[in-house]
Amino acid sequence: MIIDCHGHYTTAPAPLWEWRRRQVAGQDPGPLKMSDDEIRESLEMNQLRIQRERGTDLTFFSPRAGSMEHHVGDARMSEAWSRQCNDLIHRVCSLYPSNFVPVCQLPQSPDVPPENCIPELERCVTQLGFVGCNLNPDPSGGWWKSPPLGDRWWYPLYEKLVELEVPAMVHVSSSCNPAFHFTGAHYLNADTTAFMQFITSEVFKDFPALKFVIPHGGGAVPYHWGRYRGLAQDMGKPPLKELLLGNVFFDTCVYHLPGIELLLKVIPAENILFASEIVGAVRGVDPETGHYYDDTRRYIDAVSWLGAADREKIYAGNVSRVYPRFARRARPG
Amino acid sequence: MIIDCHGHYTTAPAPLWEWRRRQVAGQDPGPLKMSDDEIRESLEMNQLRIQRERGTDLTFFSPRAGSMEHHVGDARMSEAWSRQCNDLIHRVCSLYPSNFVPVCQLPQSPDVPPENCIPELERCVTQLGFVGCNLNPDPSGGWWKSPPLGDRWWYPLYEKLVELEVPAMVHVSSSCNPAFHFTGAHYLNADTTAFMQFITSEVFKDFPALKFVIPHGGGAVPYHWGRYRGLAQDMGKPPLKELLLGNVFFDTCVYHLPGIELLLKVIPAENILFASEIVGAVRGVDPETGHYYDDTRRYIDAVSWLGAADREKIYAGNVSRVYPRFARRARPG
Repeated sequence: MIIDCHGHYTTAPAPLWEWRRRQVAGQDPGPLKMSDDEIRESLEMNQLRIQRERGTDLTFFSPRAGSMEHHVGDARMSEAWSRQCNDLIHRVCSLYPSNFVPVCQLPQSPDVPPENCIPELERCVTQLGFVGCNLNPDPSGGWWKSPPLGDRWWYPLYEKLVELEVPAMVHVSSSCNPAFHFTGAHYLNADTTAFMQFITSEVFKDFPALKFVIPHGGGAVPYHWGRYRGLAQDMGKPPLKELLLGNVFFDTCVYHLPGIELLLKVIPAENILFASEIVGAVRGVDPETGHYYDDTRRYIDAVSWLGAADREKIYAGNVSRVYPRFARRARPG
Repeated sequence: MIIDCHGHYTTAPAPLWEWRRRQVAGQDPGPLKMSDDEIRESLEMNQLRIQRERGTDLTFFSPRAGSMEHHVGDARMSEAWSRQCNDLIHRVCSLYPSNFVPVCQLPQSPDVPPENCIPELERCVTQLGFVGCNLNPDPSGGWWKSPPLGDRWWYPLYEKLVELEVPAMVHVSSSCNPAFHFTGAHYLNADTTAFMQFITSEVFKDFPALKFVIPHGGGAVPYHWGRYRGLAQDMGKPPLKELLLGNVFFDTCVYHLPGIELLLKVIPAENILFASEIVGAVRGVDPETGHYYDDTRRYIDAVSWLGAADREKIYAGNVSRVYPRFARRARPG
């Protein structure tokens, strides 16, 4: 069993983007008109083909990250858009229940306290069977105007996440700051930033059961693991393992073998979740290997010193621990 | 010969910080009163002791990065402060010409076109023998309000850097954005961001002789080297080596062995410069090794597969190529 915890519906059919265009333009977008066949077609040649080719079984599937665009419009616009995107993910997962597991977008909006997301989160989780959510630490889209993730600003949402037993993947959206290329800088910076915000916070003392997945292999964190161990130590914090590895997990969206080797060497296997982010940031074939850059399974399989038990944890075991609603759902009967 | 290309005067004596305090408070700070003995004392027990203990010969030495504070006050304040800091570095390097090589701070200021830095750069380089400078891609201190490094906004300064044959280390200062811890997020994010700004720019077509050092091991870049190769490829750019490795270099400020191994495996030896950033971001001893986290020489020496020729390039050879004014200075006679 191989479970990919990080996939976005980047290939959603055109009517979704037309709906959004009309919404942003201030026109009445009306109901979304999209047939099941359109949905099937958008997946069969893309995510489902890739699942078959690479031998992955299940993908945790959420709306396109770059299109969450929490910085566009106000909280009402964000809510209507999130609802639309989440309903579409629900349709995908209902059409292909053996291939996709639903993860929702939150209707965040700059300067709006994040408890505004609770109704949509509850709707997705309790009514539609979603098992996780994406939490944007920077709804301003590259201007970083929100309080850090350790701030009490976020606590009402954290309380609900714990109550619902839902982890959050820390994932920014597109950047409207020209300094930050979205997939080449903003995403990785957000991963790095969030980890340091956790180190300097009390959030896991206050919410021992709260769980976060930091995507893209944790940004710069595993590469600078010594720096983070040293910074925490200089601050008089306990070792990172004790401080936050019961709560923070990294995915494997690192697109070359040396990067994956580093990740597996430095971060305990218990804290790594398999992911590829297909169809995502990098779409080409690596001329050095002849395989897709984002075919992360190949890199993990190529690490000969990784034990079978650890490999199983990374491919499937950990995800059930981090996403308890998925674990319960996956149980037969 | 082992040359450390990245050290800041973090241990400068109290009168410097008192001068700055008065300047920021709007008082007349008067002339800086500091004896040569005070300077010697601040170095003997710190940088010079560490040089001896670790067997490094020379340190490229610049003002404390976190105190550049380009976001504080206006361009005139930044200019007076930069001049003060650079003069102090000049005194250090005059007292210890066999231990330190001067690198200057630029009097950047938010919203002020960077050509305002040219007079101070010229003064340092042509009158005081400085061989490099630190360039802050975000003088707003964590709000990222400047145009990206590929923008023509920066070009007048680049022209002067090329004319003077001076490379720039891309180095932000402290962060006044609560989202970004300075040494745990802002520094690494800036390294990652700058690299992606270079990928998406034409800057090295326009300035083939311009050289940048990206510190802290390149932020997240080497760990995500596959991602960057793939992103450039998806954009129809030439391979990274061709696109920017004639112009962009990484230092070795990565504070654990697996990180250094990754860096040496992924980035050509020609593009790596030895550095430790002493006395800097991380000051403790790693309980896992019994040695200082920032004793980066130990990690490099521990990489048994690194050939002697490559090791020499990293420790000393490359720096003469990247800093031609240092090379000429170092020549006997």
